[in-house]
Amino acid sequence: MSKQVVIIGTGLIGTSLGMALTRAGWRVWLADSDSAAQEGAEALGAGRVLGATTVEPDLVIVAVPPNLTADVVVSALDAWPGAVVTDVASVKAPVLDRLQATSQSSLHRFVGGHPMAGREVSGPGGALPELFQDRPWVLTPSASVEPEAMTLVLAAVAAVGAIPIELSAQEHDRAVALTSHSPQVLASLLANRLNHATEEQVLVAGQGLRDTIRVAASDPDLWADILTANSEPLRSELVAIATDLQELIAELTTGGSSGRESAYRLVSGGRNGIRRLPGKHGQTATRYRSVRVAVPDEPGALAQLFAAAAEAGVNLEDVRIEHALGRPTGLVELSVALDQADTLYTTLAADGWSLRS
Amino acid sequence: MSKQVVIIGTGLIGTSLGMALTRAGWRVWLADSDSAAQEGAEALGAGRVLGATTVEPDLVIVAVPPNLTADVVVSALDAWPGAVVTDVASVKAPVLDRLQATSQSSLHRFVGGHPMAGREVSGPGGALPELFQDRPWVLTPSASVEPEAMTLVLAAVAAVGAIPIELSAQEHDRAVALTSHSPQVLASLLANRLNHATEEQVLVAGQGLRDTIRVAASDPDLWADILTANSEPLRSELVAIATDLQELIAELTTGGSSGRESAYRLVSGGRNGIRRLPGKHGQTATRYRSVRVAVPDEPGALAQLFAAAAEAGVNLEDVRIEHALGRPTGLVELSVALDQADTLYTTLAADGWSLRS
Repeated sequence: MSKQVVIIGTGLIGTSLGMALTRAGWRVWLADSDSAAQEGAEALGAGRVLGATTVEPDLVIVAVPPNLTADVVVSALDAWPGAVVTDVASVKAPVLDRLQATSQSSLHRFVGGHPMAGREVSGPGGALPELFQDRPWVLTPSASVEPEAMTLVLAAVAAVGAIPIELSAQEHDRAVALTSHSPQVLASLLANRLNHATEEQVLVAGQGLRDTIRVAASDPDLWADILTANSEPLRSELVAIATDLQELIAELTTGGSSGRESAYRLVSGGRNGIRRLPGKHGQTATRYRSVRVAVPDEPGALAQLFAAAAEAGVNLEDVRIEHALGRPTGLVELSVALDQADTLYTTLAADGWSLRS
Repeated sequence: MSKQVVIIGTGLIGTSLGMALTRAGWRVWLADSDSAAQEGAEALGAGRVLGATTVEPDLVIVAVPPNLTADVVVSALDAWPGAVVTDVASVKAPVLDRLQATSQSSLHRFVGGHPMAGREVSGPGGALPELFQDRPWVLTPSASVEPEAMTLVLAAVAAVGAIPIELSAQEHDRAVALTSHSPQVLASLLANRLNHATEEQVLVAGQGLRDTIRVAASDPDLWADILTANSEPLRSELVAIATDLQELIAELTTGGSSGRESAYRLVSGGRNGIRRLPGKHGQTATRYRSVRVAVPDEPGALAQLFAAAAEAGVNLEDVRIEHALGRPTGLVELSVALDQADTLYTTLAADGWSLRS
């Protein structure tokens, strides 16, 4: 017997989930307050429109905008007293707080969740069943959750190919305040400064600035909701950062050797911090070496470069492309395992590629 | 008659310059207080060790560490009264201030410079003649500079393939405070917070955090010098950022609709700022579209992907690789011109590639 699931909200996440679960053999019903949206999702193969059909789903997934999530979860718990309910909102504690206040008797059937995928695009048009493949999906079960409810939600996460990570709602919100919301704020603060820059200042901008502010291109409406929904944990992170920033400003004002010591502590502390991030496959980034190659900007040039690396039996761990100012040349940085760097370098040099430090 | 140049300092920049200018037909003499270093540079083809040889160079390039630059420039102006002198320090106003105080009569022969290349590696071992190819090289001539001096320095910049950008020393320092030094500070501040994170918090880190803090992996010694040398313009930028940050913190504390409005203004202002950066070849980034592909982590897989794009006649404008948590799969984002996106998508889909939104 295949599992039955109702998905409420057929935006990017809901539609992608419907497609993925349908493909995995689940029986999916779709509900959205916008009837054109739910019919569009049905047309994409995300499931069947629920409409007036009476169903007794095993699972209900609430995939509506963050500020509506708690209300819709409460309604779903009431409407289907036999079902497990989960949600996909990117901030978890406010939803749980609300349920603890109004739906205590149903808490054993609710598991909060946050699939960490798909935020760079929006709308059902971008929906794809592979959206969650190999991406983290945080689950935030409260102490009241029954094991069977957790098992069912884990089955759904597995069915769409995501990797479950279990955290409390509070831990999740602190984690994203640090790893997602603070980067957004700092990138946006820095990108705002470009509005005050002269043409000449903008001209000297390099890859470092571009990388640092990449996420500042995100959707302001979505992010205004996210940042305010997680205001308390975010505020704590930002206050800590502001304190460190004020200290640095004070030391730079004082000047002299204590200014330099401060700057040194800042950069070396940051280098330690960055090492805490897991590298590819959980290895540390220091086990790779970079080879930089100047690649002509014409169809097939990158393909030839990668073919040359493959012929040498070298597996590329990472690729970054820098764009040279005003000229049609791309500087490509290839990262490979330490013991393959010499092979790659020698092979490319022999093939006549223009190598850089 | 080939131009004669003395390069003082045979680290990464000096040695690379010697190799590039030698290749361009200039006659290069090398000087470094470390005799092993200058001999090593000579062995790499960067020129000949100056030693006790008497030369009358057309140009002297001072490529010593930033905190020694002003002293060495003064000595060079004294030692070779017929030569034009330039330097490569990453902060320009302090050098010029010093010369205006002590070497007023030689200022017509001095042109400050900053080649924007090579900072990710250090030491002569990474030296390569192509280091400056297609990279910006800022020149900061004072009002006293003779046209002939400027012409000679521009010839050297052209000889190594760099792109000259003319700014005043103060404009340069304000520009790098905004586009290079502030990103370093913000990235390092954020990366420092990871030292206080739990294992679980680190686990949910995504590509956004990684991009935002990438430059935090830089050398603390070098950056402590750079940040303190440019403390005044940097302080101005940081104070502006700190003010905006404090305002946001205050609004988040207040909560309610003004908190959301503040967050919205922050993110939407940042989005406007990021648009001021020139895109590839000076075009704006919005003229490209991304296609995301899941690529298996095995030798040759990336090569096959790029070969498929080339066969379709599609020119890739950019490539970014995301690493999925704990699984050997790379999500590759290919950016192409708007009118080529459909061709790429259709071709890759027909070839059986796993496409994502």
